Amino acid sequence: MIIFFEPEAPEASIAFTEQLASRFPGISPRRHVYQGRSHVVTEVHLIGSTKTVPTEVFEGLPDVARVVRVSTKYRLIGRHDDRSESIGFTYNGVRFDERAVHVFAGLCAVDSPPMVERTFAALQAAGIVTTRAGAYKPRTSPYDFQGLGADCLPWVFEIAGRYGLRVVAMEVTDARHIDEILRALEQSGHATGVMLQVGTRNAQNFELLKQVGQQKTLPVLFKRGMGITLEESLNACEYVASEGNPNIVFCLRGVKTHLGDPHRNLVDFAHVPVIRRQSKLPVCIDPSHSVGGARGAPDGLPDIFHVTGQGLIAGASMVLIDFHPEPEKALCDGPQALRLEQLPRFLSYVRRVREAYEDVTAPGS
Amino acid sequence: MIIFFEPEAPEASIAFTEQLASRFPGISPRRHVYQGRSHVVTEVHLIGSTKTVPTEVFEGLPDVARVVRVSTKYRLIGRHDDRSESIGFTYNGVRFDERAVHVFAGLCAVDSPPMVERTFAALQAAGIVTTRAGAYKPRTSPYDFQGLGADCLPWVFEIAGRYGLRVVAMEVTDARHIDEILRALEQSGHATGVMLQVGTRNAQNFELLKQVGQQKTLPVLFKRGMGITLEESLNACEYVASEGNPNIVFCLRGVKTHLGDPHRNLVDFAHVPVIRRQSKLPVCIDPSHSVGGARGAPDGLPDIFHVTGQGLIAGASMVLIDFHPEPEKALCDGPQALRLEQLPRFLSYVRRVREAYEDVTAPGS
Amino acid sequence: MIIFFEPEAPEASIAFTEQLASRFPGISPRRHVYQGRSHVVTEVHLIGSTKTVPTEVFEGLPDVARVVRVSTKYRLIGRHDDRSESIGFTYNGVRFDERAVHVFAGLCAVDSPPMVERTFAALQAAGIVTTRAGAYKPRTSPYDFQGLGADCLPWVFEIAGRYGLRVVAMEVTDARHIDEILRALEQSGHATGVMLQVGTRNAQNFELLKQVGQQKTLPVLFKRGMGITLEESLNACEYVASEGNPNIVFCLRGVKTHLGDPHRNLVDFAHVPVIRRQSKLPVCIDPSHSVGGARGAPDGLPDIFHVTGQGLIAGASMVLIDFHPEPEKALCDGPQALRLEQLPRFLSYVRRVREAYEDVTAPGS
Amino acid sequence: MIIFFEPEAPEASIAFTEQLASRFPGISPRRHVYQGRSHVVTEVHLIGSTKTVPTEVFEGLPDVARVVRVSTKYRLIGRHDDRSESIGFTYNGVRFDERAVHVFAGLCAVDSPPMVERTFAALQAAGIVTTRAGAYKPRTSPYDFQGLGADCLPWVFEIAGRYGLRVVAMEVTDARHIDEILRALEQSGHATGVMLQVGTRNAQNFELLKQVGQQKTLPVLFKRGMGITLEESLNACEYVASEGNPNIVFCLRGVKTHLGDPHRNLVDFAHVPVIRRQSKLPVCIDPSHSVGGARGAPDGLPDIFHVTGQGLIAGASMVLIDFHPEPEKALCDGPQALRLEQLPRFLSYVRRVREAYEDVTAPGS
Repeated sequence: MIIFFEPEAPEASIAFTEQLASRFPGISPRRHVYQGRSHVVTEVHLIGSTKTVPTEVFEGLPDVARVVRVSTKYRLIGRHDDRSESIGFTYNGVRFDERAVHVFAGLCAVDSPPMVERTFAALQAAGIVTTRAGAYKPRTSPYDFQGLGADCLPWVFEIAGRYGLRVVAMEVTDARHIDEILRALEQSGHATGVMLQVGTRNAQNFELLKQVGQQKTLPVLFKRGMGITLEESLNACEYVASEGNPNIVFCLRGVKTHLGDPHRNLVDFAHVPVIRRQSKLPVCIDPSHSVGGARGAPDGLPDIFHVTGQGLIAGASMVLIDFHPEPEKALCDGPQALRLEQLPRFLSYVRRVREAYEDVTAPGS
Repeated sequence: MIIFFEPEAPEASIAFTEQLASRFPGISPRRHVYQGRSHVVTEVHLIGSTKTVPTEVFEGLPDVARVVRVSTKYRLIGRHDDRSESIGFTYNGVRFDERAVHVFAGLCAVDSPPMVERTFAALQAAGIVTTRAGAYKPRTSPYDFQGLGADCLPWVFEIAGRYGLRVVAMEVTDARHIDEILRALEQSGHATGVMLQVGTRNAQNFELLKQVGQQKTLPVLFKRGMGITLEESLNACEYVASEGNPNIVFCLRGVKTHLGDPHRNLVDFAHVPVIRRQSKLPVCIDPSHSVGGARGAPDGLPDIFHVTGQGLIAGASMVLIDFHPEPEKALCDGPQALRLEQLPRFLSYVRRVREAYEDVTAPGS
Repeated sequence: MIIFFEPEAPEASIAFTEQLASRFPGISPRRHVYQGRSHVVTEVHLIGSTKTVPTEVFEGLPDVARVVRVSTKYRLIGRHDDRSESIGFTYNGVRFDERAVHVFAGLCAVDSPPMVERTFAALQAAGIVTTRAGAYKPRTSPYDFQGLGADCLPWVFEIAGRYGLRVVAMEVTDARHIDEILRALEQSGHATGVMLQVGTRNAQNFELLKQVGQQKTLPVLFKRGMGITLEESLNACEYVASEGNPNIVFCLRGVKTHLGDPHRNLVDFAHVPVIRRQSKLPVCIDPSHSVGGARGAPDGLPDIFHVTGQGLIAGASMVLIDFHPEPEKALCDGPQALRLEQLPRFLSYVRRVREAYEDVTAPGS
Repeated sequence: MIIFFEPEAPEASIAFTEQLASRFPGISPRRHVYQGRSHVVTEVHLIGSTKTVPTEVFEGLPDVARVVRVSTKYRLIGRHDDRSESIGFTYNGVRFDERAVHVFAGLCAVDSPPMVERTFAALQAAGIVTTRAGAYKPRTSPYDFQGLGADCLPWVFEIAGRYGLRVVAMEVTDARHIDEILRALEQSGHATGVMLQVGTRNAQNFELLKQVGQQKTLPVLFKRGMGITLEESLNACEYVASEGNPNIVFCLRGVKTHLGDPHRNLVDFAHVPVIRRQSKLPVCIDPSHSVGGARGAPDGLPDIFHVTGQGLIAGASMVLIDFHPEPEKALCDGPQALRLEQLPRFLSYVRRVREAYEDVTAPGS
């Protein structure tokens, strides 16, 4: 059972409600506070078997907006009724929710300071404050390039700071990486920020999910597991939230099946509206790993543009996308990277499709 | 090898080229004439092993635009070079190609004259001339409703004609059905027209493909097979074309895998640009069978709208979609049908997303 | 509802039961007679809504063994209770059921009289009376070899007869093929017999299923559809049975998914016991199309042997397998064909694994 | 490049070869020693680019058996030529290789000392020294039972020791678990041994793979990832080996797809011979998680028996299988557990099918 309070509900009302809830045997209240766009929203979750707890007891209390019985599934991340919003979060001065559009353009794998510098400079020139940069690369074979690891963090963060980048999405595959990133961020004087990325191969690495959930400093970008159902992936996000970190972005990146050929994966962006219906998480799409190549249609647009448009027109608000100054020299996944020269056109494309989305969903449209 | 001629190339030039080609041992020329939007385009295909035939011989000839060596794969339906267009076709006064947008809204299964009448009246009111109406229903179990069959054709065609519908998409599962349809159309005084639909379960029913290819009166709407690759589906269309009927529309309808849950199928509309790159066929999407339900996102739009938008923003020009006056009374697939009241909003949605597509692909955009 | 009679129940008892059933409004009885190994078994099916018909009325009647309410799903092919047997059938002097083991070894595609002769001679030498021979080949591309068609039937049947082969499994893809086969069999003086094969691509070609079901002369070997569930495939067999032909063998042949690599398909023979539990159909396996290659394990056995063993040890009683005198010259699927020299070892392998199966399932084992 | 030495090759010959190899620029030799059934086998792997290193240089050296160029893929676990054996390993007095048959029968999740005691007593009575016992359970939802964790290790190991069990297969999901197990084993006075299990959800958790590879005390049982190809899974094992631990067992457990219905997963045991051809790893099968239920065929055997037989008849030498004294009370996956009373019949079944396998692969068979 979740008790939703009116925005800016006073502490007294919340505390009283918690006290009341505690009197039911076996029930303990747990408070969750979300910082929304314009106001603070509080929920009190009743933990324990609430079968015999009547909702009416709480519905009449001061400042209580409504009371909803929820299944344990998706208790924290679920969108339990139509009125609840994707509240989102603010990190390092940047707002992430279902209305703010962000493009995390950047390097699948960090390779060298000059490449990073050229990329980040292009982002700044385009007015972007979010990027991606892979330091720890999970690779199918132990003999493939595994990423530069902790060594590159100092100069990556320094350059990011220099070009005004506020948030770097960065995959981690071990708790140790989180520590290394936090330390390097501190040593850089917090030149930039990091969103921890949980990759598709670790989508059900529950220990890692708990670890990114236990720290509350950095938000989490979770990528759908490639051989698992959407439900299993949402359950994985619930692990993160249940450890205490509600600042999660859900990212689609295609699923693996021969039916997706000639694309690298079968693009699954039709699930954008499903995620929004079932959860409160803002939705990101990764067109690069979905498509896996740079070929285009006779209309002049690469497939990567087209599937980006598909995510946006259905309501995704974030895009994670590979760019590289010289894709043919990239150490990892070069063929799917767009060239920096394509960045302005890509951003213009994103803006225009998003406008179309806002247009078709405007009230009265 | 394909010899492309300039538009409106004179008969003399074409005939001379054919004569010349015939002199190479083992080679026989075959002429293909396409009626495009504004002019007639002719191709001469050289059948036989062309390995030792030099392209230069033909490249200098009068009215020859260019000469392309093609693999036998997709010889007829393939888009063999960037300059070749999806030529499309005109049927019963309606233009079908990659620029003309059409919505085939209608009944998954024909049930009764009043339902058909209400549906067709709504289409006319909305200014639509294309519809779908299922008379022959392939059903998983022999004990399910199998469609009204040939009996309903006379009154379906009569009502269609009365409401100005020009083309009815109708699935056939046997050569006999083609004959029945042709006869009923004639008996109706050609009140309307029919586009023969090959369903996903018959996507590799090569005998049926040959039969719809051998008749050239009615165009063909081919639906991707649900457990086969895109390449296998395009090969199936090549069967139709190789029997003589080039008037084919390729329709995506989702693929079957548990990874698509909670949708009925995993939506595969990311393949729209791939089909356009690999073939000259105009592309249709079927959001109803892909999604299989009427639920929506918090932005107020049903998933069926969202995936329709995904197809259109990537370049599809046709939509096959289930509507029903009373979905709860539909004999087949009711849960996925939209209500007639939703038609105007749906059409407005289609128009606006298509405009966005045209905007982002306009030259210089 | 199905009324099962004791073996050899007298006509009077059956007729009386049918009369009684007819008195219930909306109910019509339909009699099904199966020729088992040692006796004739009769069932009377009550067609119509039997919700209000009590089973007790029939249970006390003379010669009635038992009365079972069945779902409409698998009404005819279903194994409705543990006591019911896979009754099987006899065709052209050969018994097919869940106890008789048969190997349909032969040519995926008929190519030439000498190849057919060498193959059939080897079968006779090995004591086999069942074979496979493909005259009509459904191929992915229209430009691939499509089989010799009706032309080869006379000499294939003549050679088969000469070498004592009683049943040739032969794929058909159109009703016309059934007629051609029946005519050629007759013209050959019934030199041999044919089991009509419905291929994986036609597993939901319901028109073809009805056509092989409407003729009762030839039995049917149905191959599971490669992208559909087992339930959908069993429903397809119910189509055949519901048209009147109960002589069906169910054949597994692997399902298509990238997870099966490096095999051509993911072998699905774990479904052998499921098919036997859910239906009365005897089960065949096709190791050649499942594996698609001739490589072997360090224990000296090719994968094709290993998966054959997997089918047999789980209770399959038939094997459909490609052999060729010179696989490298085969017109179709050569790489997966075993060489005729391997036939004796293969048959010995089959016999020994089947013995192990009988050993582990023997009463008291 | 791998230099294989004759069994029991003297140190001097190996050291000389290493010296010689070191003289090639950019090449460093790495020695791998395997304890086989009857003798010690040594390989020297040349690390670095060996393109310009001639094999002839080493082929003539004393005690060198042969020299093989290998791709980097599967360098350590690969079966690089037909003569190389699955060498296997001995742990805690038990031999694991492709000839020794072991059944790891036990509890999917440890629940209580009485249940564990009843299970282990039954195993001892049946003459078994290997078991499975889950202390750390990775569960889809954070609100499901997560296993008893480190707390249960002392009494699980104590009871195991008391009933003569030598090796307990136990899943770990974090490096911390390895430490906890090693400590508890030591505190128990090494009452038993543990084989670390890497579960299907962690099949590409490369950090975990490295960690189980870095310790060399305990062997590793690796379960195929459920949405990934066999090649990707074998690459994962190469991670373990490349960190220093060659004692790996490869376990198949079915793959996830709707095509496996009504089984929990689509059984993939046809890959047994493929793993043996491509790698030197002994192969285990997990029939419980593949099938996921206890239903049986009309021949009286549960599907779990049937698929076990399928693994064994194709050459698997180990079985991981769920048993429970009272499946209806199991905290996890109860429906798929066999009852302890079924153990003797199961073991007899395993023995007889294995005998059949040995019979059909015996030389001259």
